[in-house]
Amino acid sequence: MIKPLGDRVVIEPIAKEETTASGIVLPDTAKEKPQEGKVVAVGSGTLKDGERIALEVKEGDRVIFSKYAGTEVKYEGKELLIMRESDILAVLA
Amino acid sequence: MIKPLGDRVVIEPIAKEETTASGIVLPDTAKEKPQEGKVVAVGSGTLKDGERIALEVKEGDRVIFSKYAGTEVKYEGKELLIMRESDILAVLA
Amino acid sequence: MIKPLGDRVVIEPIAKEETTASGIVLPDTAKEKPQEGKVVAVGSGTLKDGERIALEVKEGDRVIFSKYAGTEVKYEGKELLIMRESDILAVLA
Amino acid sequence: MIKPLGDRVVIEPIAKEETTASGIVLPDTAKEKPQEGKVVAVGSGTLKDGERIALEVKEGDRVIFSKYAGTEVKYEGKELLIMRESDILAVLA
Amino acid sequence: MIKPLGDRVVIEPIAKEETTASGIVLPDTAKEKPQEGKVVAVGSGTLKDGERIALEVKEGDRVIFSKYAGTEVKYEGKELLIMRESDILAVLA
Amino acid sequence: MIKPLGDRVVIEPIAKEETTASGIVLPDTAKEKPQEGKVVAVGSGTLKDGERIALEVKEGDRVIFSKYAGTEVKYEGKELLIMRESDILAVLA
Amino acid sequence: MIKPLGDRVVIEPIAKEETTASGIVLPDTAKEKPQEGKVVAVGSGTLKDGERIALEVKEGDRVIFSKYAGTEVKYEGKELLIMRESDILAVLA
Repeated sequence: MIKPLGDRVVIEPIAKEETTASGIVLPDTAKEKPQEGKVVAVGSGTLKDGERIALEVKEGDRVIFSKYAGTEVKYEGKELLIMRESDILAVLA
Repeated sequence: MIKPLGDRVVIEPIAKEETTASGIVLPDTAKEKPQEGKVVAVGSGTLKDGERIALEVKEGDRVIFSKYAGTEVKYEGKELLIMRESDILAVLA
Repeated sequence: MIKPLGDRVVIEPIAKEETTASGIVLPDTAKEKPQEGKVVAVGSGTLKDGERIALEVKEGDRVIFSKYAGTEVKYEGKELLIMRESDILAVLA
Repeated sequence: MIKPLGDRVVIEPIAKEETTASGIVLPDTAKEKPQEGKVVAVGSGTLKDGERIALEVKEGDRVIFSKYAGTEVKYEGKELLIMRESDILAVLA
Repeated sequence: MIKPLGDRVVIEPIAKEETTASGIVLPDTAKEKPQEGKVVAVGSGTLKDGERIALEVKEGDRVIFSKYAGTEVKYEGKELLIMRESDILAVLA
Repeated sequence: MIKPLGDRVVIEPIAKEETTASGIVLPDTAKEKPQEGKVVAVGSGTLKDGERIALEVKEGDRVIFSKYAGTEVKYEGKELLIMRESDILAVLA
Repeated sequence: MIKPLGDRVVIEPIAKEETTASGIVLPDTAKEKPQEGKVVAVGSGTLKDGERIALEVKEGDRVIFSKYAGTEVKYEGKELLIMRESDILAVLA
């Protein structure tokens, strides 16, 4: 199991072909290209005044994030991204 | 449905032709060109001392924002922008 | 109506010819040229610990602001500026 | 009347000839040249936790400030400077 | 014994050959290459309002960290890295 | 009298010849050259939560400070430096 | 006596030849070369909410610090370094 620290999130990016399925089409000429993915693990949250503030996203959420956000890791054969929750723009529900 | 995170807002920009309808005309020579749009979704707010502070703008608001603010996404056929509330300059009421 | 967000203020700049009327003459060789204007709308204030802190300036105030501050908008035929209150230097009373 | 905002101060700079009167001589080769002036108006102070914190300087104080600080304005025939109190180095008493 | 200060952590990096053992394969073309290691010592935590906030990682944890993070030291024949906990991306459990 | 504001301190630098008297010799090849001086006036302290926090240094202290810190002023024939207390490295007692 | 201010620490660096004695060998090709030393004086700590927070290191501690940290001073014939506690990476116990 991979457990991100603090306000970090592990995301499995969704390939561009799948992207249309959820209704999101990423413009080619976007100033800052976002990307879609699925949250596979979330950190325990940011520490504020001695308490952990839970993250807004949860495991299984489909999210849009800034394309150049995060660090790539390969884990159990999957290419994953570890990024801060603040790099996630929106949840698709 | 697209749900922005934290203090982010999803905005549907209004094309320049429509702009005059609401009385705003954007100067061509503006130092920093603002743009008009409609708020289509708002985040749950910023977290301060364990409480979510609701945003000032709400769904349906017509807003002026800095033109180069936000990230473009195409969602269900519409071109939308996801930006922080602090990139919104004013509400037109 | 145009309602600025947070600590922003909408200002109608006063043309240079009118400037002498209020006794302010802006030096040509100023390091950082200020400009005079009239406040036409103020935001609801900055949020601090769950409370809105009202702005110091109010509608109708004649103010001096840093010339390059703010974003230009044209609204109902008037050229206005939207800037943060912190870009206003002083009130003329 | 000119009323500076927040922690700003309006200062009437003192010409170099007068400078010796108070005993201050500004070195020509100073790394960062300060300048002397008289406080003509002070802001209502910085807002901290809902209260205005009064400034340390008051009207009439003779002060030394960093030469390149502030914004020049001409008001009722006088050349004045509007700067933040933090740009004032010391009071001469 | 080597005791890191504050929110710092001492890590023994794991050579690339061992990396596959835990299932992590680091992509060669990663934008920002992470690296795997074992925590050998943790600091007493960050000081917040007079209390030490314990770190999330503990001795013995297998962690992924940003490759260029930290400072190299050789201690008792081992090459170690001292970095801040915020440079650790995730724990492998 | 010269009274520095806030956390500022007025220092009379000690010429290099005198420096050896107190046992400090400043290396010529230092990465960042400190300098020795005597505190001649201290500000009323930084304002935190409505209270003035007194400075650690006091009038008469011999201090070491970063050589390029502060602003030079000539006052009553003496060359003085006005700097923030944070630019003082240590007190010699 | 030399008394550092606030969160500063005075350190007597240990020459490279001695370094092996404590088991630390500094790699020549380190990205960021740390250095070993002995704490000879500590400041009274950082001021937080009106209280001094004591430093984690104490006089006599053997510490590793970032090589380019601090300011060199020569005091009573010894070459010392004055740096902030945050520049110290770890204590060797």
